[in-house]
Amino acid sequence: MDNKYAIGVDVGGTTTKFGIVNSKGVIISQSRIPSGEHEFVEDFIQELYNKLMPMVEAVGGKKNIKGIGMGAPNGNIYSGTIEYAPNLKWKGIIPMTDIITQKFSLPSKLTNDANAAAVGEMLYGCAKNMKHFITITLGTGVGSGIVIDGKIVVGHDGFAGELGHTIIRPGGRLHKGTGMKGSLESYASATGVRETAIELITMYPQKETLLRNYSIHELTSQIVYECAMKGDAIANEIFEFTGQILGESLANFVMFSSPEAIVLFGGLTKAGNLLLHPTRKHMEANLLPIFKNKVKIIFSELKESDAAILGASALIW
Amino acid sequence: MDNKYAIGVDVGGTTTKFGIVNSKGVIISQSRIPSGEHEFVEDFIQELYNKLMPMVEAVGGKKNIKGIGMGAPNGNIYSGTIEYAPNLKWKGIIPMTDIITQKFSLPSKLTNDANAAAVGEMLYGCAKNMKHFITITLGTGVGSGIVIDGKIVVGHDGFAGELGHTIIRPGGRLHKGTGMKGSLESYASATGVRETAIELITMYPQKETLLRNYSIHELTSQIVYECAMKGDAIANEIFEFTGQILGESLANFVMFSSPEAIVLFGGLTKAGNLLLHPTRKHMEANLLPIFKNKVKIIFSELKESDAAILGASALIW
Repeated sequence: MDNKYAIGVDVGGTTTKFGIVNSKGVIISQSRIPSGEHEFVEDFIQELYNKLMPMVEAVGGKKNIKGIGMGAPNGNIYSGTIEYAPNLKWKGIIPMTDIITQKFSLPSKLTNDANAAAVGEMLYGCAKNMKHFITITLGTGVGSGIVIDGKIVVGHDGFAGELGHTIIRPGGRLHKGTGMKGSLESYASATGVRETAIELITMYPQKETLLRNYSIHELTSQIVYECAMKGDAIANEIFEFTGQILGESLANFVMFSSPEAIVLFGGLTKAGNLLLHPTRKHMEANLLPIFKNKVKIIFSELKESDAAILGASALIW
Repeated sequence: MDNKYAIGVDVGGTTTKFGIVNSKGVIISQSRIPSGEHEFVEDFIQELYNKLMPMVEAVGGKKNIKGIGMGAPNGNIYSGTIEYAPNLKWKGIIPMTDIITQKFSLPSKLTNDANAAAVGEMLYGCAKNMKHFITITLGTGVGSGIVIDGKIVVGHDGFAGELGHTIIRPGGRLHKGTGMKGSLESYASATGVRETAIELITMYPQKETLLRNYSIHELTSQIVYECAMKGDAIANEIFEFTGQILGESLANFVMFSSPEAIVLFGGLTKAGNLLLHPTRKHMEANLLPIFKNKVKIIFSELKESDAAILGASALIW
């Protein structure tokens, strides 16, 4: 049988991961290239081609590949273009599906990276059998994919679901990438946790904290997590605050689309209950009674990149 | 031909409006009863029956009526029940479609009042031909109906679209009905405008303003509007502030579902550009570049109650 496989590509700010996926949603081979090192998108696609073609040959060549699905920041499913992605090197409007199809002579589809992850979660992850859920990726930034009635919400122009950029503290912390103040992403991302740490250390110069053992450069959300697990009060306060902001935002999202579940992904979820408990508490506290104690908050069981590769490949089936 | 008409009922906090609607969406007769004067919902339905039946007879009797559609606060399209509506007298869970069908021996459908208005707008109003839009009712409270891909968003349990209760000023103004702090409804409603007026008069005891010619009891959003039109600085500041809160909230909603348009309804829209200009300014200021200058904000051309009656009747077709 021809067309046994689809290729899924997940373009991230620093790394692009890709894999060959069979029709049951198993990634049978996988690799990665850097995203940020090619000034021209054509060179990036050339490197992707060089890495992918041996993998394609290993499954019997292009005749066995149905197409290439890609998830990328600001990827637009309608136009197949990546438009003004702040975290990518290629500026302006990139006609990505055209470039891929020309290079590979294979059908190609593009979507937003967070939407690709949500599709992966719906088809192969913990949202299987759910028709209404929201995925939130808590990584360097905050991404989101919204599913209503079993379909990804893309809106009238293909750009819906930018929940990381919704404002939860009007006039609050500056987001350097967007210039906006008080967006969810400026607090509830790895970058945001680091900034909260710097703020709190500065705000309480007298208070003892393990965080002072690290230079400003060394401080990461991972270090804040490790200090919190050792019982450090300020480190714990940082996760409490991060969970509060996230929980308040989730309450707003729930009152929009009333999902069954919120699925959390990404590096920050390693904090586990340190993040989950305050998030749940503040979400519930900000919900109307009709929504209370109904919405599950769950951590994805898929690796974030696997979900995106699977979701991107699913565009092709 | 039988079943030429449908009945639409719009249950509001104080008044219930209803009409007989033909298949072209023309309300051919219309009446109203109070909503808040019947301790038992059965008595309310009895009064509705008494008023409706002569109207039904006038169009040839029940054989010409296909059914009764109702929009009501917290009305649930899945269960046909009104659940814990804070602004209605009947507490707990009211099995509304059962009660109606039993009384009238006609098929019956229920939905949220704001969703009914959104359906009316989509079928017969300014959102005709739009597949992605959000309606916001700026009345005593703030209601909302969300349309994605031509369908009302009801979520997994039928309660989606409570945008008036999303938090836009965390820790902000107390909403007496819900106990929540800083919700959109606590600012961008007729009640909210009145409260802002009282706050500003108190905050600036020295400043001259026409608003001081009115007692606290007399102050309404209508009076604030009239003073603003006379050039009163504080009254103008009140609309500027209300528009800011509304605009910031709309930006968040746009980044959720990326609609073509936001349709505004309700008493506050009488303020026209006094409200529209700051709303648009603050919405645009809080949008990511990919959303800027794309989303129309329009005032509904339908009367709010007409939209809800039409939308409720459309449940039946």
